[in-house]
Order: sequence, then C-alpha cells, then structure tokens
Amino acid sequence: MTFAPRLDNVETSAIRELFKLLGKPGIISFAGGFPDSAMFDVEGLREASQKALAEEPGGALQYGATEGYEPLRTQLAAFERSKGVDGLEPQQLIVTTGSQQALDLLGKTLVGEGDKVIVEGPTFLATIQCFRLYGADVQSCPIDAHGVDVDRLEAMIREHKPRFVYLIPTFGNPSGALLSLERRKRVLELAVKYQTLIVEDDPYGDLYFTQEPPPPSLLALSKDVPGSREYLAHCGSLSKVLSPGLRVGWLVAPPELLAKATMCKQFSDAHTSTFAQATAAQYLKSGRMPSTLANVRKVYAERAAAMGEALSRELGDAVTFTQPQGGLFFWARLRGVGGKISDAGEFAKRAIENGVAFVPGAPFFAKDPDRSAFRLSFATADVGKIEEGIVRLARAI
Amino acid sequence: MTFAPRLDNVETSAIRELFKLLGKPGIISFAGGFPDSAMFDVEGLREASQKALAEEPGGALQYGATEGYEPLRTQLAAFERSKGVDGLEPQQLIVTTGSQQALDLLGKTLVGEGDKVIVEGPTFLATIQCFRLYGADVQSCPIDAHGVDVDRLEAMIREHKPRFVYLIPTFGNPSGALLSLERRKRVLELAVKYQTLIVEDDPYGDLYFTQEPPPPSLLALSKDVPGSREYLAHCGSLSKVLSPGLRVGWLVAPPELLAKATMCKQFSDAHTSTFAQATAAQYLKSGRMPSTLANVRKVYAERAAAMGEALSRELGDAVTFTQPQGGLFFWARLRGVGGKISDAGEFAKRAIENGVAFVPGAPFFAKDPDRSAFRLSFATADVGKIEEGIVRLARAI
Repeated sequence: MTFAPRLDNVETSAIRELFKLLGKPGIISFAGGFPDSAMFDVEGLREASQKALAEEPGGALQYGATEGYEPLRTQLAAFERSKGVDGLEPQQLIVTTGSQQALDLLGKTLVGEGDKVIVEGPTFLATIQCFRLYGADVQSCPIDAHGVDVDRLEAMIREHKPRFVYLIPTFGNPSGALLSLERRKRVLELAVKYQTLIVEDDPYGDLYFTQEPPPPSLLALSKDVPGSREYLAHCGSLSKVLSPGLRVGWLVAPPELLAKATMCKQFSDAHTSTFAQATAAQYLKSGRMPSTLANVRKVYAERAAAMGEALSRELGDAVTFTQPQGGLFFWARLRGVGGKISDAGEFAKRAIENGVAFVPGAPFFAKDPDRSAFRLSFATADVGKIEEGIVRLARAI
Repeated sequence: MTFAPRLDNVETSAIRELFKLLGKPGIISFAGGFPDSAMFDVEGLREASQKALAEEPGGALQYGATEGYEPLRTQLAAFERSKGVDGLEPQQLIVTTGSQQALDLLGKTLVGEGDKVIVEGPTFLATIQCFRLYGADVQSCPIDAHGVDVDRLEAMIREHKPRFVYLIPTFGNPSGALLSLERRKRVLELAVKYQTLIVEDDPYGDLYFTQEPPPPSLLALSKDVPGSREYLAHCGSLSKVLSPGLRVGWLVAPPELLAKATMCKQFSDAHTSTFAQATAAQYLKSGRMPSTLANVRKVYAERAAAMGEALSRELGDAVTFTQPQGGLFFWARLRGVGGKISDAGEFAKRAIENGVAFVPGAPFFAKDPDRSAFRLSFATADVGKIEEGIVRLARAI
C-alpha cells in the first residue's frame, strides 16, 4: 500500500518504543506526561455528568455545533476571564478535542508544504510531528530557565518569516521553564512588529507551586501590548487539571483564523463529544474547580520539592537542573563529570535495568538535540516512590 | 492573515447557509442529517456512564491508548461479529472520534496533492470536503437505486487509478440507496482485481425497515471474495443508532493502514474521549443495544412510510423517488412536468417561505451536480409533522 508523502515527514516516536518497556513489574516511572488519576475529582465529575444528562439530555447526546457546546464556551470564557483575560467572550473561542486538536487545526489551517514554524528547543514532541505532517519546516529556538531566548527569537523570525511561533510559556513540556514577564512582553511586541502569529500552548499554567500565580498568560497580557491580540492564538486544556479523558481543550484566536479552524474541525471530527462538553460545563458551573486546582497544586508541589531534594542529594554533581515552579516536569542534564555517563539515551536504558524510567531529551528537539538532557515527571509517583526512584537513578549513573 | 493553500480546495458549505434560515419559527425541517434525540436511550446511557465511573474511574478519565479503550474495542469487535464479520478481533479496529475522524485519518494517511479519489455521485458532503483538504481530486461515479454503477466504477478505476473508492453501500447519504448483493460482490472483486482500496462507510446499516437485514456489509462479505479484505477499510459509528454526542466511531482496516492511521490520530487528538468510550463500552455490554435498535428501526420505518405516502399523494407527478428501505433519507427529483419547478435550489427557497425546509441535492455531487435533486430527512419529525410538511412542500411547487 502506498501512503501519502506527508507521512515521510514523521517517524514512530522513540518515546513510544521506550514506553513498551514500562510494563516491567516493579518499575518506578517518571516517564509519563500525564496527571495522577488518584487526584481526579471523580465524585464531582459523576455529579456533573448526571446533571448534564438530567437537565439537557438532547444537548448532551445529540450532534452539536462545531464551535462547541454553548454553555461550555460560556464557562471557558469565564474561566479565562478569572485568570486575567479581560472581556473574553464565548464566541472568541472554540472547543477542541483536547488541545492536541487545536494544534492539529492550526497546522491544517496555516501550514503549507515547506512553511517555516518556530518552536522552542526543546518542546512538546507531538507538536513537532503534528506540524510536520502538514509539511512544516520546524525551526528550533533555544531556551533557558526563563523560557525562550527572545533575542534569538527575533533574529529567527527575521530570517525565517515563519507561519507562526509556537511556545509553551508557562512550565513548558519538557523544560518546566517559566517565561519571565519581561520576555512575555517582548514576545508580544515581536508579534506586532513582525506581524507574526504567536501560538501560546498553556496546559500547565494553573499548576503553579508558589503563593502567587505566575506571570499572566500571553493572552491575558495582550491587553498591555497594543495590537498583539490580533497575532495571538491561545490553546487551553482541562487535561492536566481536571481530566484528560474528557478531551476538552479550547482555542482562542482572531476571528478569521477561528472561522477557518472551525471549518477544518467540521471535517476533522464534526465536533467534540457533547457528552464530555456538557459534563465539563456542569463541572465548571458547580464551583468545584478552585478547590480541585488548590488540591492538585499542593500535591504536585510536594512531589516536585521531594524530587528536587532527592536529585541534589543522590545525584550530586552528576546532573544539573532548575527547580520547577509549576507544571509536571524536571528537565535535567548529565554533566558527564569524572567520567560519569553523559548520554541520556544510554542512561535511560541503564535506568530501566535499575527499575526506574524516564524520557531522554533528544526527541524533544526539532533540530540539534541536546543528548545530555532528560525529562523526569513527578506527577504520578508519591513522595516515597519518588525518593526510591531517584536512588535507583543514582545507581544507574 | 495568510492561510495554507489546502484551504483553497474547499468552500463554506451551501448547506450551512441554508441552515441559518432554519431558526424561523414554526418551520418543519426535513433538512437535518441527524437522528431524533427523543429516541436516545438516556436512562441506559446514564447507567452506562455511572458504571464506567464506578468500575474504572482511572480508565474513564485518564489519557488512553490512541488505538482506543480496550473494553470498547472488544465490544465493537463483538458487535461487528454479530453482524456477520466472522473472526474480527479487537486489534483489527481503532476507535475514532466519530466516523468523520475515520474519514479524516484516511485522507491524512492516503491522499497526497492531486491524488484521485472516487466517490458516489451524490455522496456525503463532508467527505468530499474532507478529502479535498488533503489535496484529493475527487471523481464522481453515478449511482441508481441499487447503489453505485459497478461497470462505470470499473471503467473509472482503470482510468483514474484512485487512491481509494469511497462508498456508502447501505442506505447512502443522501441517496438512501441500497447496494445490491450482486454489486457488493462485484465491488470486492474490483478491489482485488485492481488492488484498489475500498472505503465502506456504514453509519446507517443497522437502520433497516424490512423484516430481514439488508445484504451484509462489504466487511462481512469480504470472507466470500478471497483477498478482498486486504483492500477494504470499514468505518462504523454509534451516532445514528445510539448517540452522536458520544462521538464514537471505529475504523477497521488492514494492519499497515491501521498503524499509519493510528500514528496520524496520535497527532490529531491523541485519543477519543475515554469517558465517552467507557460509557459506550458499558452500554454495549449492558445488552440494551438490540432493543434500542429495534425501537429506532420501528419509529423510522413508520416515518419513512408516512413520508413516501404523503409525497405520492401531495406531489404526484411533480417528483420521482424510490422508497428507502432503511436509513434516514429520501432522495427525490423534480420532474419539471407541466411547467412546474425543476431547480431544487429555487424550490428550497420557496419551501422555506412556505414553512418547510430540506437540502437541495447539488452540493452532494463532487462533479456535475443534478440540480433537480433534493434530500428529505424523515428522522426528526413525527408522522403528523411529516404529513403537514409535505403539504407545505406541495404548496411550494
């Protein structure tokens, strides 16, 4: 059978291969990118789904508008407004089947064969592949602990004239990095200056560990940078804070882009499950979200603290990392000092032999992979498991 | 903003424009393509969703495998086996976000710029647009009341060497046509002879009005035509028989194609809502499906009979149509006799003025539209409304 040429642009993920090894009994996994199901508010979701079926069974079970179920759009707009996105109206967003679909629709809508797209190096693996399937030539802009290097970004926008720049400004995957307020403003200014669309992917923004929230999202901040809202698309998600299984994400974008994305969505899946949408709408309406968020923040903060301490204690000068202030991930580098291992791919294999798993960093780079880097998720293991897992990591070094 | 060239291949649907007029108060609509929400088994779905959350909340709310939730794949394979698809195993299908996504994945996986795809003329509108977004040059093969003209199809396969042939063999949308058993065998033989993939879209096959089921699906029949299974993809759906809002469809395909479609799905929406999947799995497991199917068949059969009688009585020689034996649609043609109206687009406008809506047939053709044809759905109006609606139609002629 002959397949479309676009499939030549992607490869079966190296991570997928690694995941096959995770079935090994007794393994402690820091490999996943998913939240801890033990923290799902099952009772709240049960009530929400019952209410959805009781109050409007037709709406929850019938075909729905491609743009999304109106009561959910209303709730999501209010959720964004509660996070500083002044004046956001329901019709300025569409509901997507997870934020992965928002990325797919942006690719479908905007990317033609050979078009340049700039992403962070490293960035979310599925984004790179998703855009490449539409023919994107994906360029990689370096980051540090404060997020993307804005000077390099400006130079790259000038050089590549990209279709758009894709960023995860808040607690990035895999980097855990937090883009500083100053850089956020610079990014928005660059959008206006070069009339270049910025795609802000923000699934982790609610998962902060500090007393105060992190700097506002680019979407919230756009009011301070005149004209920037016209060059900004924002992808939101309930997956990391409520439940990935609902597959409810959303896309905020300028009207013309939103209309084209809606048309493409019509032919992608017609609409997102109305049952899942109505459940999410009832959940948000129930008022349980703030305490759910407080709970996940608290638990992940404890786990992140435990992992940071264990890494310093057990691995010492073998690795370098920045303590994340939110999200789900540590991004660390093997220093290779004293003849110790410096290749994260090799390290991952040895780690599995020692009963602990993580994801090497190379696949997260669209170009020029950093082979010393690796990602550890602290989301799904409890503090005891985290400490034991890091001890095993130390053995593998 | 500049969009990807692929968007030039599609246009905002003429139907969408028409649908905006449907808000007019008191209008009787035969325009929709959806089932009647009054027939949804809300209680059965409520119980199923509760059971899904009670028995395996993690499975229902966490990220899931791209291929689908295992218990649902098991149930769907059994459902297909109950309809004569001998030996179908769960791993031979993947769950899709409605069967619309199965079509999207086939387009993404198989269609490159300028590739030929053969569809029926007329066919499901969203299919044409979906494939065109991937660059398909969509060719249209004529049909009659017994489905696609297989001699013409063979000639077109020879001429165009298509990537695949897309058919709705059972109660097609919009045609209502039923492909005869003899032609079904010919189609499968053509698949083998020309090594050409056949895509069978089968959302309506369970909605038959006769005592006995219609001829088996191409998938079920493939066991009688050696080698044909290798050239067959089958799209199934719960949307027309259980609930569209779950957005649960499935794709059966040869292993290599299924693997590529799975990879593409990973970057489209990661997976279909596990909450919806677990609910569907529990529903199928509950054993309520056979009586649900019996009920919808009975109600739609009554409505179809009432619409056929009213059309003959009220419109007489102004139209010609074949009484459908299943599905949701009448496909009729204006004969234009005695100076009566012959353009279905014009007729649709006049009909709306008279308080009744339907969809003109032209947009359902990829090429050479039949401007005298139109589609009437009998699914959502009760018998009284159907009779009144046809009286209004007669006034509009």
